Amino acid sequence: MSLKRINLAEKLAMFDSHWQPHIVAEYNGNEIMVVKFQGEFPFHKHDDTDDLFLVIEGEVLLDGEDGDKVTLGPGELCVVPKGMVHRPRAEQVAKVLLIEPAGEPNTGDSGVPPAVKPRI
Amino acid sequence: MSLKRINLAEKLAMFDSHWQPHIVAEYNGNEIMVVKFQGEFPFHKHDDTDDLFLVIEGEVLLDGEDGDKVTLGPGELCVVPKGMVHRPRAEQVAKVLLIEPAGEPNTGDSGVPPAVKPRI
Repeated sequence: MSLKRINLAEKLAMFDSHWQPHIVAEYNGNEIMVVKFQGEFPFHKHDDTDDLFLVIEGEVLLDGEDGDKVTLGPGELCVVPKGMVHRPRAEQVAKVLLIEPAGEPNTGDSGVPPAVKPRI
Repeated sequence: MSLKRINLAEKLAMFDSHWQPHIVAEYNGNEIMVVKFQGEFPFHKHDDTDDLFLVIEGEVLLDGEDGDKVTLGPGELCVVPKGMVHRPRAEQVAKVLLIEPAGEPNTGDSGVPPAVKPRI
């Protein structure tokens, strides 16, 4: 075992795909991922887990239920509680750190096939 | 329940203490914390949990065992695996996002009394 430096910008420069989380580290059975958002993701929820979003670059909108909404810029985070319906979206490309338990489908209960999450 | 925007710089501006994690959010029983490092922390380990450090501003050195060492700048993270002895230090003030399970003593097994972690 040795300590490993993970540079998020370097990891984000390794891919162009949108809405495809890429795993950069693990923490207690959770996957630490970077992902690029652009456009609208489907509304969904995760019945068994919270969902952590931290914006690295750009602007992310998170729509909740009943018109609830939050806008996140760089250095801003939001934890979507488990069971809460939400939809991430971004008008321009946004770069995000995402934490979810290993194996959790990024599309939640939406019925949309989940992304394959490469390890980079 | 509603979605909440958490601005890390705003949270970090609320205190001056060093080595005192401040809780800004929860994720699945883990505390999402911000903390300012300056000087040397004691060597310690966490027997039951990984330890996630993400540098927001400044430079952090993490010393491991047997001369292992990593230097982290802004946008760089390191997950110290559970059971691995480590020591964070910072020559100048560094601002860090830290994730540990709720209730985990920040000083691990060092024998140094753990910090009280205010919620901000």
